Amino acid sequence: MYQHETTVRVRYAETDQMGVVYYGNYPQYYEVGRVEAIRALGISYKSIEEQGIVMPVSKLNIKYVLPAKYDELLKIVTIVKEKPDKRITFKCEIYNEADNLINFGEVTLAFLDIKSKTAVHIPDFIWNKMKVFFNE
Amino acid sequence: MYQHETTVRVRYAETDQMGVVYYGNYPQYYEVGRVEAIRALGISYKSIEEQGIVMPVSKLNIKYVLPAKYDELLKIVTIVKEKPDKRITFKCEIYNEADNLINFGEVTLAFLDIKSKTAVHIPDFIWNKMKVFFNE
Amino acid sequence: MYQHETTVRVRYAETDQMGVVYYGNYPQYYEVGRVEAIRALGISYKSIEEQGIVMPVSKLNIKYVLPAKYDELLKIVTIVKEKPDKRITFKCEIYNEADNLINFGEVTLAFLDIKSKTAVHIPDFIWNKMKVFFNE
Amino acid sequence: MYQHETTVRVRYAETDQMGVVYYGNYPQYYEVGRVEAIRALGISYKSIEEQGIVMPVSKLNIKYVLPAKYDELLKIVTIVKEKPDKRITFKCEIYNEADNLINFGEVTLAFLDIKSKTAVHIPDFIWNKMKVFFNE
Repeated sequence: MYQHETTVRVRYAETDQMGVVYYGNYPQYYEVGRVEAIRALGISYKSIEEQGIVMPVSKLNIKYVLPAKYDELLKIVTIVKEKPDKRITFKCEIYNEADNLINFGEVTLAFLDIKSKTAVHIPDFIWNKMKVFFNE
Repeated sequence: MYQHETTVRVRYAETDQMGVVYYGNYPQYYEVGRVEAIRALGISYKSIEEQGIVMPVSKLNIKYVLPAKYDELLKIVTIVKEKPDKRITFKCEIYNEADNLINFGEVTLAFLDIKSKTAVHIPDFIWNKMKVFFNE
Repeated sequence: MYQHETTVRVRYAETDQMGVVYYGNYPQYYEVGRVEAIRALGISYKSIEEQGIVMPVSKLNIKYVLPAKYDELLKIVTIVKEKPDKRITFKCEIYNEADNLINFGEVTLAFLDIKSKTAVHIPDFIWNKMKVFFNE
Repeated sequence: MYQHETTVRVRYAETDQMGVVYYGNYPQYYEVGRVEAIRALGISYKSIEEQGIVMPVSKLNIKYVLPAKYDELLKIVTIVKEKPDKRITFKCEIYNEADNLINFGEVTLAFLDIKSKTAVHIPDFIWNKMKVFFNE
């Protein structure tokens, strides 16, 4: 299992007239969470694309527990529980400043070779950085 | 069961550098779908809020089948299958111009009384417009 | 002079906690306005890119007169006043349902050859559709 | 004159199919810049609203010099040059990781009393924190 924490500050743009973060903005927070989780491994998602791999999302689930408010510094916990293969699933938990769980879910992404447009296994240059967390 | 169809044109703003619609923009399309589905019943979501009810999202699931591309006129099919009570679930299917299913999912929303901040049953002024579709 | 009108419905996602459209969402409405203005000439912006030309924005000005509200059907008036050359300027006026001018501004875009990354004159396949509006 | 610097990391969501940041996303970066500039004075924009003042944008100008790319850590410089009165103007400059100026502009906001919906002078609790930068 690999786990990582980062933070994101709620922007005014991300609120809606209900006075809380619009439900459709959480996928951006999840993106920030997993990009920083990958960066902490020593890989940027940018470099993954530069090596010819894109990672389109195939599945998204979100459960909304409490609203996030403007200007809150949210804690984003990103977890990879299962060993990735042709797909990787990032679990995500978001906590507000009072440390209440306000939102959780998961995002599954595929590894896609840009040129051949075919699904591939997790590339070695990524797996080599992750395998220590999966006892391999 | 209540079913409704509308369309949405993909904006440049909604694409990302993968050359397709960003995964986090589909919740906006789902919103357009359900708002127009409600409007076709003779109710605007705006008027629901003006009558003191807000509808926060409690759950979102999306499966991504094919990418949506810039400028495509997407067809959004919105379906209410189960009789709403304290919550209402909108199923959503998105089709591209070639009529391929590219994306589907569901959004569950609660009915919340603005003043008391408590969950309530679907208000009569909404249910009265929907019950014909549920044999009531 | 070339002038075109279209409409856009304000999405919930586009409001902020001030209860009106977020100031940073108007550039998207301007985009919708100019894309539909071009389409009305018989050209899609998509086809422009397919012919190897991209049109990056070089300048944007907006004046905010009145707020736009959720669910309003806004009228977007897009005007090309000056003959385009290496750049094209779209003036934009947005009116609410009461036909009050709520927002106006202009966007200047360049014509850029994708391969050579150099600025070019307005391509003939575009100008040929526009020149009738400029007495040429 | 008051000047402040902060950074923002470009999200995938903020790019478009041209492979760079969408022109309409810069107002969000400007927002981040001025909100952090205000916070550095010891005031949060959130607390301003809690004291009954909202700050709607009345004018926005942007010049786009170079594109911002995915994952870049942009430097946002926010400057208040003129003494604010009923309005405040934030100049904004954005630099990429190579320290090239890629984008600049200005945003003018009004001070509006929420209850009376009338324009007011800059509130004392804000001005008291700023006046030292204007030799007052």
